[in-house]
Amino acid sequence: MSRLHLIPNTLDFGVSAGEPAPLGDLLPGVVIHTAAGLAHWVCENAKTTRVFLKRVDAVCPLSRPLQEISIVELPRPPKGRDASSDGGAVAELLAPALAGHDLGLISEAGLPALADPGALLVAAAHAAGIAVLAHPGASAIALALAASGLNGQNFAFVGYIPVPAEARAARIRALEATSRREGQTQLLIETPYRNGALLEALLAQLQSATALSVSVGLTLPGGYTKSASVAQWRQRATTLPADVPAVFALLAR
Amino acid sequence: MSRLHLIPNTLDFGVSAGEPAPLGDLLPGVVIHTAAGLAHWVCENAKTTRVFLKRVDAVCPLSRPLQEISIVELPRPPKGRDASSDGGAVAELLAPALAGHDLGLISEAGLPALADPGALLVAAAHAAGIAVLAHPGASAIALALAASGLNGQNFAFVGYIPVPAEARAARIRALEATSRREGQTQLLIETPYRNGALLEALLAQLQSATALSVSVGLTLPGGYTKSASVAQWRQRATTLPADVPAVFALLAR
Repeated sequence: MSRLHLIPNTLDFGVSAGEPAPLGDLLPGVVIHTAAGLAHWVCENAKTTRVFLKRVDAVCPLSRPLQEISIVELPRPPKGRDASSDGGAVAELLAPALAGHDLGLISEAGLPALADPGALLVAAAHAAGIAVLAHPGASAIALALAASGLNGQNFAFVGYIPVPAEARAARIRALEATSRREGQTQLLIETPYRNGALLEALLAQLQSATALSVSVGLTLPGGYTKSASVAQWRQRATTLPADVPAVFALLAR
Repeated sequence: MSRLHLIPNTLDFGVSAGEPAPLGDLLPGVVIHTAAGLAHWVCENAKTTRVFLKRVDAVCPLSRPLQEISIVELPRPPKGRDASSDGGAVAELLAPALAGHDLGLISEAGLPALADPGALLVAAAHAAGIAVLAHPGASAIALALAASGLNGQNFAFVGYIPVPAEARAARIRALEATSRREGQTQLLIETPYRNGALLEALLAQLQSATALSVSVGLTLPGGYTKSASVAQWRQRATTLPADVPAVFALLAR
């Protein structure tokens, strides 16, 4: 019985500072071993998947030459769209699994199907009766929440928020209201070049007592998490890097 | 400058089937290396932390004998309570870090401070100006969501829900309403011996078209994820194990 393996990627986008770290430092051994054995992959980006497989090969030799491994890209839905709302074409990507081959799904960073379009393929696998196996690995969202010190027993990840100023302000105030009503940490992300603008909008809209945490470049050299009240954030001049992923978390007090 | 290291635990509770798997199979190398070097720990349970450190030692020798390593337990707040609502006593646990030693925080399973009381210590560290470093590792919640095929771009984890029947039914209907309004996957957990009762309550309260996913014993041999509509779940007789952690996820359609 063939299976769909969800293979976590590192959070370093294959780069880190200079040479990428050995994969054994960043991923559990079983994940590397499983990845080395797969001949069929679905991914967001075939080029970076090949880079990942070369890193796998350096630790645990691939079961066949890279050029004989099938790598197919997922169709990309627009950002923020519910990935589970369509998916006819995606079901075709399961063909290798239906023909009896184990299939791997990998994301650009972290866990596939979490904050990326891969959930479509996972849903199609369940519908087709293909077993889905999630392998342990890092998620930037989970790490940012853990490092924030905010409520980790009740939290929501809402992805991207609107960019136009008025809609953005309204969304931030609505998230703060939900946080207050439910006692729920709210996590969001932004395209890296807009990290600074999102921080500015959060500091302009949130109430002074609300706790705000920003995690930047988690697991990368120089990565960090800062948590403080909005009042404290306003007293510091903070510049966020525009080329490294960040995760933002807020909790109304 | 000393730091608070968030060290992920495995999801096998030190047991799996028979002998525990080698830690190198389950955790990234940097995590094991970092854990081996720490002389001061805060945890939920000192006994299981010692078991963890013995597994670390088998892969990467500890920097000093186990009996010379300081292991202090967190006070346990009642289940479901917002861990960030008190914490004076917890701040004292930071003493080693304030004295210049790196400090480790570890949970019984998965990431510390996520669905466990550790967030208190992390918040105290931020307040004391101690840098917090989250190390990559598995989170059962993140894995369950990834494997569910439900919306991974907008989701909430709400922890435990009330046990009394009426309050439980009302909470389930409220979570389904939130899921429908926000397009947001709702994740919840239960004490393992009540897994079956929670599934029964979900099937009784949720609408037929709502998607329901149950992940059982993730990363354990025999672990699995099943996702289907509530209507489909009702047509199967499903018995959940009463001794293995499960994560439940729902998405209104």
